[in-house]
Amino acid sequence: MKTRILWLFFALLFATSAIAARAADPLPSWNDTASKRSIIAFVEKATTPGSPDYVPPAERIATFDNDGTLWSEQPMYFQIVFAIDRVKALASQHPEWKTQEPFASVLKGDLKTALKGGEKALLQIVMASHAGMTTTEFENIVKDWLSQARHPKTNRLYTEMVYQPMLELLTYLRSKFFKTYIVSGGGIEFMRPWTEAVYGIPPEQVVGSSIKTKFEMRDGKPVLVRLAELDFIDDKEGKPVGINAHIGRRPIAAFGNSDGDLQMLQWTMAGQGARFALLVHHTDGEREWAYDRDSHIGRLDKALDEAHAKDWTVVDMKKDWKQIYPDK
Amino acid sequence: MKTRILWLFFALLFATSAIAARAADPLPSWNDTASKRSIIAFVEKATTPGSPDYVPPAERIATFDNDGTLWSEQPMYFQIVFAIDRVKALASQHPEWKTQEPFASVLKGDLKTALKGGEKALLQIVMASHAGMTTTEFENIVKDWLSQARHPKTNRLYTEMVYQPMLELLTYLRSKFFKTYIVSGGGIEFMRPWTEAVYGIPPEQVVGSSIKTKFEMRDGKPVLVRLAELDFIDDKEGKPVGINAHIGRRPIAAFGNSDGDLQMLQWTMAGQGARFALLVHHTDGEREWAYDRDSHIGRLDKALDEAHAKDWTVVDMKKDWKQIYPDK
Repeated sequence: MKTRILWLFFALLFATSAIAARAADPLPSWNDTASKRSIIAFVEKATTPGSPDYVPPAERIATFDNDGTLWSEQPMYFQIVFAIDRVKALASQHPEWKTQEPFASVLKGDLKTALKGGEKALLQIVMASHAGMTTTEFENIVKDWLSQARHPKTNRLYTEMVYQPMLELLTYLRSKFFKTYIVSGGGIEFMRPWTEAVYGIPPEQVVGSSIKTKFEMRDGKPVLVRLAELDFIDDKEGKPVGINAHIGRRPIAAFGNSDGDLQMLQWTMAGQGARFALLVHHTDGEREWAYDRDSHIGRLDKALDEAHAKDWTVVDMKKDWKQIYPDK
Repeated sequence: MKTRILWLFFALLFATSAIAARAADPLPSWNDTASKRSIIAFVEKATTPGSPDYVPPAERIATFDNDGTLWSEQPMYFQIVFAIDRVKALASQHPEWKTQEPFASVLKGDLKTALKGGEKALLQIVMASHAGMTTTEFENIVKDWLSQARHPKTNRLYTEMVYQPMLELLTYLRSKFFKTYIVSGGGIEFMRPWTEAVYGIPPEQVVGSSIKTKFEMRDGKPVLVRLAELDFIDDKEGKPVGINAHIGRRPIAAFGNSDGDLQMLQWTMAGQGARFALLVHHTDGEREWAYDRDSHIGRLDKALDEAHAKDWTVVDMKKDWKQIYPDK
């Protein structure tokens, strides 16, 4: 009996100190490199009362790109996988798609041919899969897909392909009274159904690309119908525009991974006082993917040069991150 | 000496009980009528843990129209007064306006003739006064105007023509962990510079009409330039669209005063669980203005019928409010 109690005592002691160590380190999945140190140094100076760089809580806005910054984006944006799966699911209602491009090729599984039509083809696939239903119906379609679809390489659910170090960073910033936002080229209504559960980011803090919606009465009940018409592209020059439209304040910290995030980082850094810009550089071909200047997805070229020139933080995924995805 | 201490004692006692009475009544400028009781009954049932109508804090979204709901809107929307004042201020840079309508009439002080051109004329006045500068420049122009311009009837600053009972309502809702939003037909960038100081509503919780902006580099510094191009009209059917785009959640309570708010109230009431809709009816020709079905500003006709039919709360300004504007 005594041994048992002693054993329990040591187990408790061990657990307690493990918890204490975790509490002391807000970013346990980050190696102790310059990237991690730069994040902590910025947060400390912006949030310590009396610091010359102190920023009041209301102004602590942090914006995060999603694809390639908070979750993976290879071998193609996950929202494109969703669109393709939707085209396949809807094919029986559209017999004409059998002969009509880009749908015919999508249905044959030949994405390369399907996308030969460039932007126009992509837009046709997006509209066929994202428009024509109410906002509530679309929300359910997205939730349903995410609960089942799995990534071909990792066999994980897509929402399990978020970056553990970035989840810790989001939590750390919020513990210091930052308001964390997503500012993504992805669809705003594609992200909102799950960002709160996965990232702790509520729908009202998600900014993204959008199609138009229309208010309608159906059987005496008001609905919003999603129209096959682009409203806003939240990418490149669009990101500061989207930030201004939705938030109305300039962020003091911005996080991205590609040239599509460059203007968001420039806009953030051009403000007064404490500022922080970070790029996730995909350098880990083993645990994730390695790509930058020549990739057609998440190309990181001009933004990488500017980050080096202006001394922004560049995360080397392979060296800086102990772990990529959360434990399952 | 003793008398003095006794006097101080009674003064303190009086102050304390006054504070206690105020704390007990979250809406001291509201008379104890059905309107006030309906507000309190809704808030209690939505926020009392264990209540069958309990709503978790994250979902406690309340949306408020601005013109005629939070501040006055007569004899014309205050933003129109701003636009006219700007046209006058800019006239020396535009000699052509002397002969060009609608500007010529605006400069002569003949608004009736100026607005004979209808929507097109109004749009010309709005664009001449609201576009062509950076977002930061516009913010400063708005702040500057609001610090000086006074209402012709009350001689108050426009930001002093907000409704004291509604200020108390905003504070009351926030004390119960509601997130309070403005959803107004007015310009989003015209409201954001002052809503935090005046209503306690931060810029990221303001939804409104907008013109397009464009990201540009000027002398190596990024700016957002306001373009003379409409982006979004946040009125009538536009209000649920704007709510969905900005908030991504359906409100559980909505507050308006005109037919322009009807769809926002319908959209709010169509959700599940505890719901609340309120219209401010302008019935006080002495302390404010009296108008409804025949007014071209803030017309309240269809929405009033629907409110009566559906038992929404209709505030009778004259009977329900002890005080209109805050003490100066």
